[in-house]
Amino acid sequence: MAEQSVWFELAQPLHAQAVLDFFQQVTQETDYLLDDEEIANYSLEQMRDNLARRQDLFNHCCILALLDDEVIGLVNLAGHDHPQLDHVVDVFIAVKKAYWGQGLGTALLDNAIDWAIQADGICRLELSVQARNSSAIALYQKMGFESEGLKRGAVKTKEGDYIDLSLMARWV
Amino acid sequence: MAEQSVWFELAQPLHAQAVLDFFQQVTQETDYLLDDEEIANYSLEQMRDNLARRQDLFNHCCILALLDDEVIGLVNLAGHDHPQLDHVVDVFIAVKKAYWGQGLGTALLDNAIDWAIQADGICRLELSVQARNSSAIALYQKMGFESEGLKRGAVKTKEGDYIDLSLMARWV
Repeated sequence: MAEQSVWFELAQPLHAQAVLDFFQQVTQETDYLLDDEEIANYSLEQMRDNLARRQDLFNHCCILALLDDEVIGLVNLAGHDHPQLDHVVDVFIAVKKAYWGQGLGTALLDNAIDWAIQADGICRLELSVQARNSSAIALYQKMGFESEGLKRGAVKTKEGDYIDLSLMARWV
Repeated sequence: MAEQSVWFELAQPLHAQAVLDFFQQVTQETDYLLDDEEIANYSLEQMRDNLARRQDLFNHCCILALLDDEVIGLVNLAGHDHPQLDHVVDVFIAVKKAYWGQGLGTALLDNAIDWAIQADGICRLELSVQARNSSAIALYQKMGFESEGLKRGAVKTKEGDYIDLSLMARWV
């Protein structure tokens, strides 16, 4: 990867097709992702609406790692809308397999944490990660996330095995 | 409370107004509830639709404690719809303040656990509870729920203080 040609940009409706292409690819590449299959099946119109809507919300953002016009990584911050929970933001991150192990996850999370610090009213970033995904857990720890719990058997693999989910959070 | 006149029934669309009245009252009575303010503001039509829709889902149910036509307590089981998460059901329980401390929470949870055991495909009941709500935590422990983690500052009180959320789960 020619690092100098990767740039980071807030997702906008004009990225809808590239984001869809990204989700359709990454959901095929790994069993570690959960929340994205529904998104991968969005129509182009639904994805445009989704990206437009979150531009208006103070505790939502989606940051893309772009290589030319291709989305090669993405971090999504999704805040709660209940006033007693709106300081809490769920973090979702994914990187195309061809770009694993090249620091892209670190760079995406760095951007996301900076964005959350600048945003007014966000205090807590949280995420869940499959307990078997040790490289992701190591990344989150490096970026200041601490383990807060372990949900036993909270996810089924496609083969029907029950696996644990680790909960992690970071105050900003 | 004349215990012999309380009965438990699966919520149906015909209970919509009584369920709305219940939520409007309990959200005023305690700061321990989070997820219900939106529901308390449903229209009658929205509540009817909501109760009708969940009758068709294998991993959803709402059990009412009724005294005459009044809902005095409620347990709601809400399953995930993602196929890798649909064995997991979120538990929400509330009881009118006038009936606290009379065993109604235990009876509602007993009914809910029995329902989940009978239902095909539900493995895991989970819930979150404010860490300061020690009587609720004692009830969940008595009913077989174990602590799985503590989310620091995950809820704001109406006064703006950050408080911890305890995560608990029980396998069925």
